[in-house]
Amino acid sequence: MLPGDAPDLSCRFMNVYVKRAFPVANVRRFLEPGPIVLVSSHHRGQSNIMTMGWHMILGFEPSLVGCYVWTENYSFDLIRKSRECVINLPTVDMARTVVDIGNCSGREIDKFAKFKLTPSFGNVVGAPSIRECYASFECRLADSRLIRKYSMFVLEVIRARVATAPRYPRTIHYRGDGVFMISGANTVRFRSRFRPEML
Amino acid sequence: MLPGDAPDLSCRFMNVYVKRAFPVANVRRFLEPGPIVLVSSHHRGQSNIMTMGWHMILGFEPSLVGCYVWTENYSFDLIRKSRECVINLPTVDMARTVVDIGNCSGREIDKFAKFKLTPSFGNVVGAPSIRECYASFECRLADSRLIRKYSMFVLEVIRARVATAPRYPRTIHYRGDGVFMISGANTVRFRSRFRPEML
Repeated sequence: MLPGDAPDLSCRFMNVYVKRAFPVANVRRFLEPGPIVLVSSHHRGQSNIMTMGWHMILGFEPSLVGCYVWTENYSFDLIRKSRECVINLPTVDMARTVVDIGNCSGREIDKFAKFKLTPSFGNVVGAPSIRECYASFECRLADSRLIRKYSMFVLEVIRARVATAPRYPRTIHYRGDGVFMISGANTVRFRSRFRPEML
Repeated sequence: MLPGDAPDLSCRFMNVYVKRAFPVANVRRFLEPGPIVLVSSHHRGQSNIMTMGWHMILGFEPSLVGCYVWTENYSFDLIRKSRECVINLPTVDMARTVVDIGNCSGREIDKFAKFKLTPSFGNVVGAPSIRECYASFECRLADSRLIRKYSMFVLEVIRARVATAPRYPRTIHYRGDGVFMISGANTVRFRSRFRPEML
């Protein structure tokens, strides 16, 4: 078992993580355990951030992620029209901010300014990433045909950047009704049991 | 913060959980954090179990879950033809079994017998649930149109049964490459920050 950080739910001054390039085919390492993410988008001078809990990996090559974005979200049109966004991975120190971002609408406020988050432009996509997040996965809309029926955007991750430390982020996972599960220990104890092609 | 169980990765004798009925609209409480699940199915005298990591909540009423089932899985045809299955929620004491179930094919062996798991028939669906799992979510195939393109089965949970204790199961979450994250602490610390309609 790998050591985790000591539990710390205080909302301290937020980190700006130092990130490195990461293979897009391996983003499951961070998304498959089911964390809450922050999706940032940009269209015609408007940027926004939304809190998102409903997503799933759909493939490695291409690196596909299915994401549920409610039609009422201000981000819905920004992503649909720009056909781009960034999936940012917040850690537990940002839990309060994650909740607050979900409580308000980008129609009324600039969420980057309001929550003192640092947008990082200069990505492959036009949307800014969030420097205070552990990882950023730049995405293009790969398939818009499931939006009408299921509010599902099929996104292709075209560039990934991940913090150099810690090895595993302490992510937050939503249970509904205001309850969060915080990611626990990480273990390679069972790795040797896997048939190699099943990893 | 709610107290968690002490870390225990030993594969002890598996529990048979006592379960109670649970509202299908609330299954997100267990599935949204992103645990690995065991999907059981049955068609024309054949039962099977598969390990599944790619799924997402798609709605509350009806209670919809999108699930990725690879075409090569023996379960693929059992679910597609019977149009039913059960999503079972294993806990960390079953981690070894979860890996082993993913390593082999139901074409060759009876996984219930091989892994000494207890099938529970007499559900609303024809598929058996797994008594050693913490929860069982009986599902009907609600939409088969995404199977061809994305291997995605849109399932409707029509009956849920959840263990009476503990309040939160210690679930396992896959990171690829043989690494599991085990669910950590659960907290209601941020509940009061939510706007009620955002819960």
